[in-house]
Amino acid sequence: MNRLLADLRIVEFSAFVAAPLGGMTMAQLGAEVIRIDPIGGAIDYNRWPVTKDGASLYWAGLNKAKRSVALALDKPEGREIARSIAAAPGPGGGIVLTNLPPLPGLDYAGLREKRDDVILLRLLGNRDGSAAVDYTVNAASGFPLVTGNNGSGGGPVNHVLPAWDIAAGLYLATALLAAERHRARTGGGQEVVAALSDVMLAVVGHLGYVGDVHINGQARPAIGNDLYGSFGRDFGTADGRQVMIIALTPRQWRALGRATGLADKLAMVGEMLEVDLETESGRYEARDAIAALLARWCAGKTLAEIQAAFAGTGVLWGPFQDFVELVRGDPRCSPANPLFAEVEQPGIGRYPMPGLPLDFSAAPGEATRPAPRLGEHPRQALSEVLGLSDGDIARLHDSGIAAGLNGS
Amino acid sequence: MNRLLADLRIVEFSAFVAAPLGGMTMAQLGAEVIRIDPIGGAIDYNRWPVTKDGASLYWAGLNKAKRSVALALDKPEGREIARSIAAAPGPGGGIVLTNLPPLPGLDYAGLREKRDDVILLRLLGNRDGSAAVDYTVNAASGFPLVTGNNGSGGGPVNHVLPAWDIAAGLYLATALLAAERHRARTGGGQEVVAALSDVMLAVVGHLGYVGDVHINGQARPAIGNDLYGSFGRDFGTADGRQVMIIALTPRQWRALGRATGLADKLAMVGEMLEVDLETESGRYEARDAIAALLARWCAGKTLAEIQAAFAGTGVLWGPFQDFVELVRGDPRCSPANPLFAEVEQPGIGRYPMPGLPLDFSAAPGEATRPAPRLGEHPRQALSEVLGLSDGDIARLHDSGIAAGLNGS
Repeated sequence: MNRLLADLRIVEFSAFVAAPLGGMTMAQLGAEVIRIDPIGGAIDYNRWPVTKDGASLYWAGLNKAKRSVALALDKPEGREIARSIAAAPGPGGGIVLTNLPPLPGLDYAGLREKRDDVILLRLLGNRDGSAAVDYTVNAASGFPLVTGNNGSGGGPVNHVLPAWDIAAGLYLATALLAAERHRARTGGGQEVVAALSDVMLAVVGHLGYVGDVHINGQARPAIGNDLYGSFGRDFGTADGRQVMIIALTPRQWRALGRATGLADKLAMVGEMLEVDLETESGRYEARDAIAALLARWCAGKTLAEIQAAFAGTGVLWGPFQDFVELVRGDPRCSPANPLFAEVEQPGIGRYPMPGLPLDFSAAPGEATRPAPRLGEHPRQALSEVLGLSDGDIARLHDSGIAAGLNGS
Repeated sequence: MNRLLADLRIVEFSAFVAAPLGGMTMAQLGAEVIRIDPIGGAIDYNRWPVTKDGASLYWAGLNKAKRSVALALDKPEGREIARSIAAAPGPGGGIVLTNLPPLPGLDYAGLREKRDDVILLRLLGNRDGSAAVDYTVNAASGFPLVTGNNGSGGGPVNHVLPAWDIAAGLYLATALLAAERHRARTGGGQEVVAALSDVMLAVVGHLGYVGDVHINGQARPAIGNDLYGSFGRDFGTADGRQVMIIALTPRQWRALGRATGLADKLAMVGEMLEVDLETESGRYEARDAIAALLARWCAGKTLAEIQAAFAGTGVLWGPFQDFVELVRGDPRCSPANPLFAEVEQPGIGRYPMPGLPLDFSAAPGEATRPAPRLGEHPRQALSEVLGLSDGDIARLHDSGIAAGLNGS
């Protein structure tokens, strides 16, 4: 975290991954991010993984460093307060981020009535407004049918990482800063609209797969864990682990031959198959023969022995690890890495939380802050942002328009 | 594309996905992005998918709308010209984006000698400077061991989408605008450093999986294509297709019961297993019994019949499609969607290319521009940016320091 965007206030109406990640990225850059939820929480408030008591580690993870206000968004008065917070004055205010259908008065026209230069960033499912989520967008993307060995006949394999949501959230973060830059220079606000399916389509196109079908009349096959168009594959070790070994560049390829002592035998593969193993396409064509040699080499060594053999050689490789091995055994996933800090998360406990994976030399890093408790910050939003008195705030609580902690 | 960032000039030393995507996002927002490559191209210049003639559809996809300058970066004079372009004066210049090891003189100190307020954004593999790529970072992430049915014993399943590279590229885009905002306000440049492995670790933490191990002492299992903690799964149709059906919310759950006519039978599942199917955890616990009913229903219908049954019902679902079905059959992946335009890509041909998946109401959309040919723009960079004369430029060509098209 840092304070680069400390002069900005962003109001979020959101759920799940995309908009929460976009907003959290702004919060980790120092912006005041107020997430406004219905009393009791939005549809992502109990999302798994959860603790034994049902507290969502997912929600906590995606809402770190934000403020939380819970309002009766099903009532006109609750929505009007939300609108006032979203469109409150001040040069850094009036920025709204959402991936939910707009509530009455909280669409661009409604917000603009309150503040002409408001910036509204909206993520839709599909461009036409129909629903789409990471699971459906991914199904349409083509990737599940070329993932894993299952891909070639055994059916689709979904990614577990919600990659499209993550890309969409970071596109929104970029868009927010581009729109705010425009406002700072021209005085004008705007509505920025993105569709999750368009994020997927853009990335599929950027990677060349749309052109592949149009120009070549074909699509890449499912090839398990092999790297498409060069050499890379997973191998088992003598102690039951797996490693990924890759040779994208000629330098990595030569390093692999030297470090394994297989250079001569690998050269025989090239002769035998009459391909130039110094080229990516040559290594791809010869991948099964290359892998046969490497598989035997890896199977005769433990992970530790492979690590020792590859250390300092320039071989591009890495072990597979499960979440437990990552968290318990990989020092990069611990406070030994400045990315992480032990943080006390209210309602959950103390554990290492990642900050922003960006270090700015001109903005000193600050401690990562936990996620708020739901409805933790009515006073800050209602008093600091709207200027309401203690009496006003008490009345809103008593009438059930604004909830405090635990819905009270 | 639009012209929001038309006053910025960004110089890119890059390869593969992350920095090229970050730079291209800036170019699609109107910035002048000059990618400087070694003569003959960088290590990604022939990356697959390629055309029959070996032209990279991948490189074209990730470098759209940029300018290309090819310089003898292995020679001091070539590097000095690169440094001059990178650190050229002007309020929107002096922004450098890279995911390659710095060449002599092109690190932050070297650039700063030329321009005190330079902004350098650098993506490393690991924070300690050691190599890591999407394949190794993904292996370490925990995800391949919970992906697919293979995950539970059959070995890791890699994602095919380079998701970590994509996230890193979009984090860099966000960081660039945050650093440029800081410079516009304070006059100060800076170095921004990110590590690909930190991007992975941050996202694993954000999604709750680090907390899951620390707080619950466990990690989520591999569950094939099932949605973790709610209901979602893939089903086969009577005509050999697959669909993804999801019920994240009570509304989606009820819509699914109504649209399939299975509401009564699904209620029996709840009674039978004594779980509340209105809750996400209840649906997750009962997922196999729910799926047994839905599998029979889907197996008796073609994709078109399922589409008809679900249209307008609020059921959250979508068909799986391969790249060919996506490109040939999905209107969202065609110029019927304003995201796409038919563009003539030099050296490849004409095909639909995606623009920026963000629509800004205050910035009119412009036509998507193709990727440059390698070394297409020496004149723009050398003359417009550096002010060199035609004679100077001719001399640089003759001495092999700057290449034109086709390395000439």
